[in-house]
Amino acid sequence: MKKKITIAIDAMGGENAPKKNIEGLNIFLNKNKANKDFFIHLYGNQKLIEKEISSLGITSNLIKIIHTDAVVSDEESPMTAVKSSKNTSMWNSVKAQIDGNADISLSAGNTGVLLVISRMILKMMKEVSKPALAGLWPSKKGMSVVLDLGANIECDDKNLVDFSEMGAALYKSIFPDQQPYVSLLNIGSEEIKGTEMLKKAFIKLKDLSNENNFLFNGYIEGNELMEGKSNVIITDGFTGNIALKTAEGTAKFLVDNLKRSLTENIFSKFSLLFSYFSLKRFKLKIDPRKYNGAIFLGLNGPVVKSHGSTDSIGFYHSIDLCYKIIKGDLMGEIKNNLNHLNARN
Amino acid sequence: MKKKITIAIDAMGGENAPKKNIEGLNIFLNKNKANKDFFIHLYGNQKLIEKEISSLGITSNLIKIIHTDAVVSDEESPMTAVKSSKNTSMWNSVKAQIDGNADISLSAGNTGVLLVISRMILKMMKEVSKPALAGLWPSKKGMSVVLDLGANIECDDKNLVDFSEMGAALYKSIFPDQQPYVSLLNIGSEEIKGTEMLKKAFIKLKDLSNENNFLFNGYIEGNELMEGKSNVIITDGFTGNIALKTAEGTAKFLVDNLKRSLTENIFSKFSLLFSYFSLKRFKLKIDPRKYNGAIFLGLNGPVVKSHGSTDSIGFYHSIDLCYKIIKGDLMGEIKNNLNHLNARN
Repeated sequence: MKKKITIAIDAMGGENAPKKNIEGLNIFLNKNKANKDFFIHLYGNQKLIEKEISSLGITSNLIKIIHTDAVVSDEESPMTAVKSSKNTSMWNSVKAQIDGNADISLSAGNTGVLLVISRMILKMMKEVSKPALAGLWPSKKGMSVVLDLGANIECDDKNLVDFSEMGAALYKSIFPDQQPYVSLLNIGSEEIKGTEMLKKAFIKLKDLSNENNFLFNGYIEGNELMEGKSNVIITDGFTGNIALKTAEGTAKFLVDNLKRSLTENIFSKFSLLFSYFSLKRFKLKIDPRKYNGAIFLGLNGPVVKSHGSTDSIGFYHSIDLCYKIIKGDLMGEIKNNLNHLNARN
Repeated sequence: MKKKITIAIDAMGGENAPKKNIEGLNIFLNKNKANKDFFIHLYGNQKLIEKEISSLGITSNLIKIIHTDAVVSDEESPMTAVKSSKNTSMWNSVKAQIDGNADISLSAGNTGVLLVISRMILKMMKEVSKPALAGLWPSKKGMSVVLDLGANIECDDKNLVDFSEMGAALYKSIFPDQQPYVSLLNIGSEEIKGTEMLKKAFIKLKDLSNENNFLFNGYIEGNELMEGKSNVIITDGFTGNIALKTAEGTAKFLVDNLKRSLTENIFSKFSLLFSYFSLKRFKLKIDPRKYNGAIFLGLNGPVVKSHGSTDSIGFYHSIDLCYKIIKGDLMGEIKNNLNHLNARN
């Protein structure tokens, strides 16, 4: 019998916790009624969690609550976090991995603190020089992964190569039937374009590219992020964060304008009756909750960060992502890719 | 009598030149029938230009054609451009400024070549350490300017301060009644966030901020680019180019998806009849042609680059931008801002 997938959830992290966390879990349980290959461990205030569980009528025997009194606050700074966040629900949900009680940890709490304590508790993989934050990005062909989204302001070519190997492994774990195509984000597609760091990484990746791990597609520009030609897009944490937030801001700007245009007079409001289902499908297609969950890569265990402000549907998608990642053997894929890398060095 | 504004246009640059260039000019002339405060000088093949002019029935005495045989090709590399682009329509339209025959130059041709020859012909202002490419960006409150969009891959804090002074001057020249609010693009809004370069520029800009030139609004993140709280957004050329193209790609992705959703079945197609005008207004509001025209700043004369692939409406907006910039005394505003800067150093 295969070992069960155990997901350690910080039930107290994020807005409206633990309500939205448990509601998200409920969606996950309902969608996986036929599955018995997982366990969910909930870290946090037992009473509050039990209250939500009973109000939703959850009776699953696949969940377990591990009580913790303390919670990491949103105001906590990463500087003091190590001292003051011990034995919080977040801390214990990450620590569960080194105690052998979980395969992956999920929190919607304070991002800075989660990154710091995850790194402290799980430690960096010896093959990796810097950890990275990877995110899911919609594309014409489905979904891509993009990293680094902000864990490292400054990177070198070695980091970008590590990110490529880890990003390709992540993509493979989520989409086992797909071939990872890696590209470096740049301001032009010609080999001579970009910073020295990018040019060096380009040469290394061209050499490492092979079907077993990934195929290297060269450079892509910002406007190609969503084309789907490449599904693993690599950049430093500063650029990745700017790109991510610019895309979010652009989407919000457009959707707000569309809403305003479609409701500004009685005639356009009337038209909404007719286009309701089309617009709903459009909204569903670009729903950011489907992409909720950033994956912290490069540690001796995976940690997923959900948006703090997402709702139960967004949180469900993060749980589902954790499940897929472990089912797809992310850590095995990463080790495989990094070994291949080291063998070449 | 005030001196007339003279705009030197490379009539041969861009796709479908000179047709779209002359059509764009025709729109400009029709919108400015009451104005007599400008001259348009068209550089390029006289016969081809005259053909377009007569086919549109243009009879204005505010235009003049200066014949040139050669045209810069799209394949020309910036490396060899200086040698091979002499006496092309692009070259001559830029050179017109140092001959005292124009206040500003406009081309939709090869970007790399335009940047190189502009820099060579017009020379850098002595107060500026690097020139920058500025663009117009839609915002909730109207329009912002963003720079650098790709002229400099690597920048230091001094460059960012120069860009701020020049960007504020550009904003002021286009919107004389508005107050420029400058922000640095960063991955967080707290003072401790970001690269060393950004932190140093932050301190300098806080010190320089004053109502006569601009007010410094601190850092903004990518998702705030379109909020309009700041209308002059400063970044290095690598990050700016990634942000610009990511925004373009995101907008295209969303609009393509919206189109598909609204036309995927007979019911949704029918609904289009009702929302036609609302959607048209939406399209108009986000029409990229309204933002067509990047401004090359930091040289001893302004050069505007139109998108090569834009149509006549986009090219009209670039001509209109040239007109506004000179009417608003861009060069005077830049000198004023830079002098103020130097006085403080």
